[in-house]
Amino acid sequence: MRSRTAFVLVVGALWLVSATVGAQTDPLPSWNDGTAKKAIVEFVQSTTTQGGPRFVPPSERIATFDQDGTLWVEHPMYTQVLYCLERVPAVVKAKPELAQVEPFKTVLSGDREAIATLPMKDLEKILAATLTGMSVDEFKVQVRTWLETAKDPRFKRPYTELTYLPMQEVLKYLRASSYRTYIVTGGGQDFVRVYAEEVYGIPPEQVVGSAGGTVYGYGKDGKPFLTKEPRLLLNDDKAGKPQGIHLMIGRRPRAAFGNSIGDQQMLEYTKAGDGARLAMLLLHDDVKREYAYGPARGLPDTRVGAFPQALHDQAAAQGWIVISMKNDWRQVFAFDK
Amino acid sequence: MRSRTAFVLVVGALWLVSATVGAQTDPLPSWNDGTAKKAIVEFVQSTTTQGGPRFVPPSERIATFDQDGTLWVEHPMYTQVLYCLERVPAVVKAKPELAQVEPFKTVLSGDREAIATLPMKDLEKILAATLTGMSVDEFKVQVRTWLETAKDPRFKRPYTELTYLPMQEVLKYLRASSYRTYIVTGGGQDFVRVYAEEVYGIPPEQVVGSAGGTVYGYGKDGKPFLTKEPRLLLNDDKAGKPQGIHLMIGRRPRAAFGNSIGDQQMLEYTKAGDGARLAMLLLHDDVKREYAYGPARGLPDTRVGAFPQALHDQAAAQGWIVISMKNDWRQVFAFDK
Repeated sequence: MRSRTAFVLVVGALWLVSATVGAQTDPLPSWNDGTAKKAIVEFVQSTTTQGGPRFVPPSERIATFDQDGTLWVEHPMYTQVLYCLERVPAVVKAKPELAQVEPFKTVLSGDREAIATLPMKDLEKILAATLTGMSVDEFKVQVRTWLETAKDPRFKRPYTELTYLPMQEVLKYLRASSYRTYIVTGGGQDFVRVYAEEVYGIPPEQVVGSAGGTVYGYGKDGKPFLTKEPRLLLNDDKAGKPQGIHLMIGRRPRAAFGNSIGDQQMLEYTKAGDGARLAMLLLHDDVKREYAYGPARGLPDTRVGAFPQALHDQAAAQGWIVISMKNDWRQVFAFDK
Repeated sequence: MRSRTAFVLVVGALWLVSATVGAQTDPLPSWNDGTAKKAIVEFVQSTTTQGGPRFVPPSERIATFDQDGTLWVEHPMYTQVLYCLERVPAVVKAKPELAQVEPFKTVLSGDREAIATLPMKDLEKILAATLTGMSVDEFKVQVRTWLETAKDPRFKRPYTELTYLPMQEVLKYLRASSYRTYIVTGGGQDFVRVYAEEVYGIPPEQVVGSAGGTVYGYGKDGKPFLTKEPRLLLNDDKAGKPQGIHLMIGRRPRAAFGNSIGDQQMLEYTKAGDGARLAMLLLHDDVKREYAYGPARGLPDTRVGAFPQALHDQAAAQGWIVISMKNDWRQVFAFDK
C-alpha cells in the first residue's frame, strides 16, 4: 500500500515537473522574434523575478488593454456601432412611429453611404435608442442574440472570432504570470462585458468602458431591477481612460496596450509610474491579413483608430514599443492557416 | 534516492491532509451558535458543494459588504466625516483666508455642539475642501498620515482597529471558499481604498464607494497625474449601491451584508437573484460592548446608521437574516479580552 501511494505521488511529482517545463516553452508562438516580442518577455520575466531590481508584487500586477483595434478588428467600423445600426429594425418594430423619423429612416433605408455620413448628433440618437431604455438583463440577451448570428462582411465570421491570436497569447501569458488583465475601452462597458469572459477570458468586473447611469426600480412581481439610461457617467476614451482606471481599479497599470490616440493618456499614465512599466502601441500596417491605416497609410485615416504621426513620435520619445502587425505577428487570427 | 523522494512526497501529502482537516475547524470562532452563524455556514457549504442544488460556480461568487456600521464602528460619527473635520486646520493653514469664513470658522472653534448641528450644505463645503483639489496620490498620503495618529475617543484606539472580529472572520471564510469580497460603501471610494487592503484584506479594485470625478493633467516635470474634483459620479448609497455594483462589478452579488436603510436596495437586489442568495443585516443592540441604536433603541436614532422598524420588518418578510451583535457575537473586537 505504501509503495502504491509512493507511486501515485511520484507520478504526481513528474506531472508537476513536466508542467514546469511546459511553462518554459515559447509563451508567444504567434509572434516573430523582434523588439516587440522581446520587450514583452523581458517585462514579464523581470517583473516576476523575486529579489530582482524590477520585481513587481502580485497585488500590483495590473495590465490594461484597449479593445477595438488592439484586441480585435475595428475596421471598417466599431463592432458596437454595427450592433446599434443593425438593432434599429427591432427598435422601430417596437415603436413604429420611429420609421418616419430621422436618423432611423436613413438607417432603415440601408443606404450605406448615407449611413456612413450621419452626423455625430444622429449617431448619438441611434446609440441612445439601442443601448438604453431596457433592463441590464434584457440588454445582455439582445447583444448575445446578435453576436450569435452577425458576421463580418470581409472575413465572413462572427465578430467574436476576429480577435488577434498574438494578443490572446499576451493575455494568457500575463495571467499565467499573476497579472490581472483588464479591458479599458472607449466602447460601452455593458456591451463588452457580454462576451469578454468567453472571448478574452476577462470577467465583467475587469472590463472598464464607457458607462451610463442606471435607474433602480421594481417590476410587477415586486422584484428590483436596473434600467439603462442615457446619462453618461464615464467617457472612457483619451483622458477618460486614466480616469476610468482610477475609478474602477484604483491602481496605476504596470503594462498597457493600445493602438490609437484614444489610448495616448493611458499609455502616458502607465509609463509615468515608478519601476518597471510597459507601454505598447499596435500599428495596423498589414493590408493583406487585416488593414493598414494611420501612419502606415495603406488606407486613408478614418474616424476610427486614428494613429497619427504625432503619436508615433511620442511612442519613440517616451519608450513605448510599437508592434508592427505585418512584421511582428507570424499569425493574425486563430482561423488563419 | 527513490525512497527519499517518496518520503518527501508522503510528508507533503500528510501536510495536505492536515491542512484539509484544519479547514474543517470552526471558521467563525467569534460567533455564538444561532440562526445567524448557521445561515452563513450553510450558505457557504451549500454554494461550494459541487453537484449540489445550490452550487455557485467560483466566477459568480461575489459577496458585498457595507463598511460603516457593518465592518467597523460608525458611532458617534462616520470616520470619514471625522477625518474631514480634523483635516480643516491643515486646509486653513494652506488658505488662511478661510479662517474667518463659515463653516471653517465653526470647525476651528472646536465647539462640538455647533459642529454637530452644521447643516448639510456646510458639511458639503467641508467635504469638498478636504476630499478634493489635490492629486490622488497626495490624498492617499494625507489620509494615511491621519490614520496613523487619530484615535477613537471612547475606545482609545486607532480607527483601523475598530473593525468587528466576527465580520473579519466572515470575510476570510468567504475568501477561503473562493468568494471575492467587495466593500460597497456610501463612504468615499478613495478614502476607504487607502486602508482596505491592510484592514480587511480587500484590494482597491474591490472597493466600491461614492466617487467623484478626476481631471487629467501634467506636472512641471511633464508627468501626468489625476486631480480629485468635487463632481460626484456615483452616490453609492441606497439605490446607488446596486447601481455601483452594476457599474463596478457587473454581477449580482450572491451574499450581501449591511446594517442600515442605506443598504436596503443592495440587500433586496442581492436576494432577488436566482439560486442561493444570502442577505444579512447587523443590528446594533449592544450598548455595553459597542452601541445600541435603531429598533434596539438603546440610543436615539442619529443621522448615521438609521435602521428603522420598517427595515426590520422587510428583513423578516424577505428572508434576510438579522445579526444581533449582543447575542450572535461572542467577541466584538480583536482587542477585547
